[in-house]
Amino acid sequence: MSDQNKQTPSSFSSPSVSFITLGVDDLERSVAFYRDGLGFKTKGIVGKEIENGAVAFFHLQPGLRLALWPRQSIAFEHQLSLGPRDPAGMMLAHNVTTASEVDSLIACARAAGAPILREPKPFPWGGYGGVFADPDEHLWEIVWNPGLSEL
Amino acid sequence: MSDQNKQTPSSFSSPSVSFITLGVDDLERSVAFYRDGLGFKTKGIVGKEIENGAVAFFHLQPGLRLALWPRQSIAFEHQLSLGPRDPAGMMLAHNVTTASEVDSLIACARAAGAPILREPKPFPWGGYGGVFADPDEHLWEIVWNPGLSEL
Repeated sequence: MSDQNKQTPSSFSSPSVSFITLGVDDLERSVAFYRDGLGFKTKGIVGKEIENGAVAFFHLQPGLRLALWPRQSIAFEHQLSLGPRDPAGMMLAHNVTTASEVDSLIACARAAGAPILREPKPFPWGGYGGVFADPDEHLWEIVWNPGLSEL
Repeated sequence: MSDQNKQTPSSFSSPSVSFITLGVDDLERSVAFYRDGLGFKTKGIVGKEIENGAVAFFHLQPGLRLALWPRQSIAFEHQLSLGPRDPAGMMLAHNVTTASEVDSLIACARAAGAPILREPKPFPWGGYGGVFADPDEHLWEIVWNPGLSEL
């Protein structure tokens, strides 16, 4: 669309992320996990009328949304072959302000059926955290980090 | 650490994400791509003195950071077996306010050596966008969406 020969590519002057889309194998199951298990708010699955359009959105902090979209749709739309999931490919961190919140949110995830990959414990760099996996092995770290502002 | 039997698990009253960690196969290469290719700001690789601690952070919008951490470290720390990457597992979206910004940032990614998985074009739901892949096949969508506030 653009003509690269005439254009000096600009760089990302203000890098930001507005949507984090997680590829899922069973959209209904994943919506149930995030909505009913973790308490995330959503309008549910929308876009079913569009081919590969079925998706669910969840509000995170202002300016950021979580989207759940079938891996099959992501693969189809980008001409990717669909292989096995890679749990080491990505992690999301949810920071909290006390260690006890780490404990209670990991307990919430456990009650929702999530495998706990790291029971809450101190980190070698300070802080305290635990890690659970969603139904598609996307890792969520719940972390209390008193030194967060220094990073 | 917590005693689940005595505790009613709280749910996520305010879901948010503070860090998006991308698993990478070559940390130096990925830092160079984001810093030199895309123009993201970073202090470079830190934490080398800690086992599996080498990581690079980039500021996104306030309250959100991007981290690059070797997939090998993610796998080791969470007792995962390291398999192939899954490009359909996740996408990040960077929203812009004009279609021409989509073109120029896709051109920037192309100049940085990124494969373009979707050349900039209109979406069936409205809006306009393109998609590139970082060196580890993490997908970034650059999107102009005039209906963003309705989602």
